[in-house]
Amino acid sequence: MTDVVALAQALLRADSVTPARGTVFDLLEAALRPIGFAVDRFVSGSAPDGPVENMIALRPGAGPHLAFAGHVDVVPPGDGWTGSPWSGEIRGDLLYGRGAVDMKGAVAAFVAAAAQAQGPTLSLLITGDEEGPATYGTPALIDRMAARGIAPDVCLVGEPTSVRQLGDMIKIGRRGSVNIWISVPGRQGHVAYPHLADNPAGKLARALAALQTLGLDHGNDWFQPSNLEITDIHVGNPAHNVIPARAEARINIRFNDLQRGEALIERVAAVVREHAPAASVTGKVSGEAFLTPPGPWTAVVSGAVEARTGLIAELSTSGGTSDARFLSQLCPTVEFGLVNATMHQVDEAVAVADLATLTAIYAEVIARLAA
Amino acid sequence: MTDVVALAQALLRADSVTPARGTVFDLLEAALRPIGFAVDRFVSGSAPDGPVENMIALRPGAGPHLAFAGHVDVVPPGDGWTGSPWSGEIRGDLLYGRGAVDMKGAVAAFVAAAAQAQGPTLSLLITGDEEGPATYGTPALIDRMAARGIAPDVCLVGEPTSVRQLGDMIKIGRRGSVNIWISVPGRQGHVAYPHLADNPAGKLARALAALQTLGLDHGNDWFQPSNLEITDIHVGNPAHNVIPARAEARINIRFNDLQRGEALIERVAAVVREHAPAASVTGKVSGEAFLTPPGPWTAVVSGAVEARTGLIAELSTSGGTSDARFLSQLCPTVEFGLVNATMHQVDEAVAVADLATLTAIYAEVIARLAA
Ligand SMILES: [Zn+2]
Ligand SMILES: [Zn+2]
Repeated sequence: MTDVVALAQALLRADSVTPARGTVFDLLEAALRPIGFAVDRFVSGSAPDGPVENMIALRPGAGPHLAFAGHVDVVPPGDGWTGSPWSGEIRGDLLYGRGAVDMKGAVAAFVAAAAQAQGPTLSLLITGDEEGPATYGTPALIDRMAARGIAPDVCLVGEPTSVRQLGDMIKIGRRGSVNIWISVPGRQGHVAYPHLADNPAGKLARALAALQTLGLDHGNDWFQPSNLEITDIHVGNPAHNVIPARAEARINIRFNDLQRGEALIERVAAVVREHAPAASVTGKVSGEAFLTPPGPWTAVVSGAVEARTGLIAELSTSGGTSDARFLSQLCPTVEFGLVNATMHQVDEAVAVADLATLTAIYAEVIARLAA
Repeated sequence: MTDVVALAQALLRADSVTPARGTVFDLLEAALRPIGFAVDRFVSGSAPDGPVENMIALRPGAGPHLAFAGHVDVVPPGDGWTGSPWSGEIRGDLLYGRGAVDMKGAVAAFVAAAAQAQGPTLSLLITGDEEGPATYGTPALIDRMAARGIAPDVCLVGEPTSVRQLGDMIKIGRRGSVNIWISVPGRQGHVAYPHLADNPAGKLARALAALQTLGLDHGNDWFQPSNLEITDIHVGNPAHNVIPARAEARINIRFNDLQRGEALIERVAAVVREHAPAASVTGKVSGEAFLTPPGPWTAVVSGAVEARTGLIAELSTSGGTSDARFLSQLCPTVEFGLVNATMHQVDEAVAVADLATLTAIYAEVIARLAA
């Protein structure tokens, strides 16, 4: 029987600031092989976004194929920790360490659950780059699975979705995200002779004002309205008496499943060009929105949470993006994990008791799938 | 008799990149003392905008007091000159050097004119800092004159006002200029949680869009409409997923004599605060607009130009600011000088023949004042 606390401590003691390679995967492999998993570790990509280590661990079974997805890389610890961010020490009721809730604790819990619960085919899809650019993380895992003919039926991402107590929230979707860069060219000149110049800053300001009046949508049953934010504006003109040659801005749109990233880029471009016909507008879709509508798979996870905690988890689509945006293209995907209060913070910590409860919930999920 | 070309060459050979001190003033003093001027040189101010050397040269006479105002500092020559920018050499019909038209040529012409024409009280008000911040240039000259009880009746500024040929334009006014800095505070946050943040970039864009719809005025007989330009916008947020904490912009307004600088700052602040109530708006008036309406003094200058060139000079208020904005507070002030095509350019040059003609025009002005 895998000791979830001991495994979590071992994982936390391996410094695995993103991108993670080596030791932390060695530890995981050593825990998985004895309980029947075949482990496929591979390195993807090259600089600047790689190389990245990833792992597919697979244990064939009888029922549907459940993929547990997660990451063993962590964000840099930063300064100000009470102890070492790599101590993996328990003080009082809490286990401390960078990654305790996001998400080495959940990875350990899933291994422990797989050790106790049998039945369905189980896989662990573990990346070393979720906190970084992620270019060669989960997308590379998905490519590798396709090449090997591995196709999960349902996916559970172990991100820390709980808010106040373990079990209060399951994520069944996420908004999409797109960054859009606007660059307005002009003709530089002296402010005293504006007729000889063409001021791009004024055009950009009018375009940005107009973009704020775009009502993208009103949201729907599962999503809040899509939202546009201006994240940067740059002219960079030090001369008080000079009309600048170029003005630039960057916006971000978090959007629900009523929108598609590329269509939003087009829509923004059309508004910008009303005010600045020569503007260039380029976008990069970080991820499309996804939704796993409440159904059999969400009911399995909700039921397991309720059985082990007594809580009716809220089904939510709030928050930032996660790797579930990729995995949801394969099969119904939900996210459920530890309490996220300390994620990415100094003195990140998980309640020791929560590790046992989360293990029990994941084991319950496996058992209910087998049934 | 002062040789205008030789004096202009001597002045051009003295490197006097702003702020100018020493040699170039020595040369001027040496030219003025023999023709009856009492020379008062003094140094004003301290770092960062000083020290600055200035000169008041005064020759008492019988008629009204004509002040000729100018500067012996020059803008840096920059790269790409055919010869040395300090050569003062004549090639073909042109005398080359940084300051040839702006405005050592005109200073030499005024000295030469004063050498031939007698009558009215004459003064030369010469600063070593017109091209720099000018904090301790002409304003210091005006203070010194007040302390010494020197009060000119009319002023002629020797800036290069001619456009296509010498004599085609006299400036009888200039627009004012004010720079205004807008700083909009916000609350930083993650783009996924906009309700926890307060985006200042959006407010700034709306304020800047609104400022562009302000019709300040329609101009009048002597001035074009006042004009607002956005000269810089800055947010400086590198993070794609972060709502920034502050957004800033700088604008410049060139305004006619229907406006006052401080009132424009207030007006801009009111518009900005409609969109960003917490914004700070600060302004600095570089100079108020001035106008010397056509009258006896402008007629003297126009008449002298016509007598010596046959041209009816256009009376204009176009262009940037000049030190005339300060001098016009003392007495009726006009600006007239060489062809400005090469000012602040590489290979700045004056037609040798224009130096003689400008001397003749300035002498004619002196003679007409005496009459
Ligand atoms: Zn995570
Ligand atoms: Zn000048």
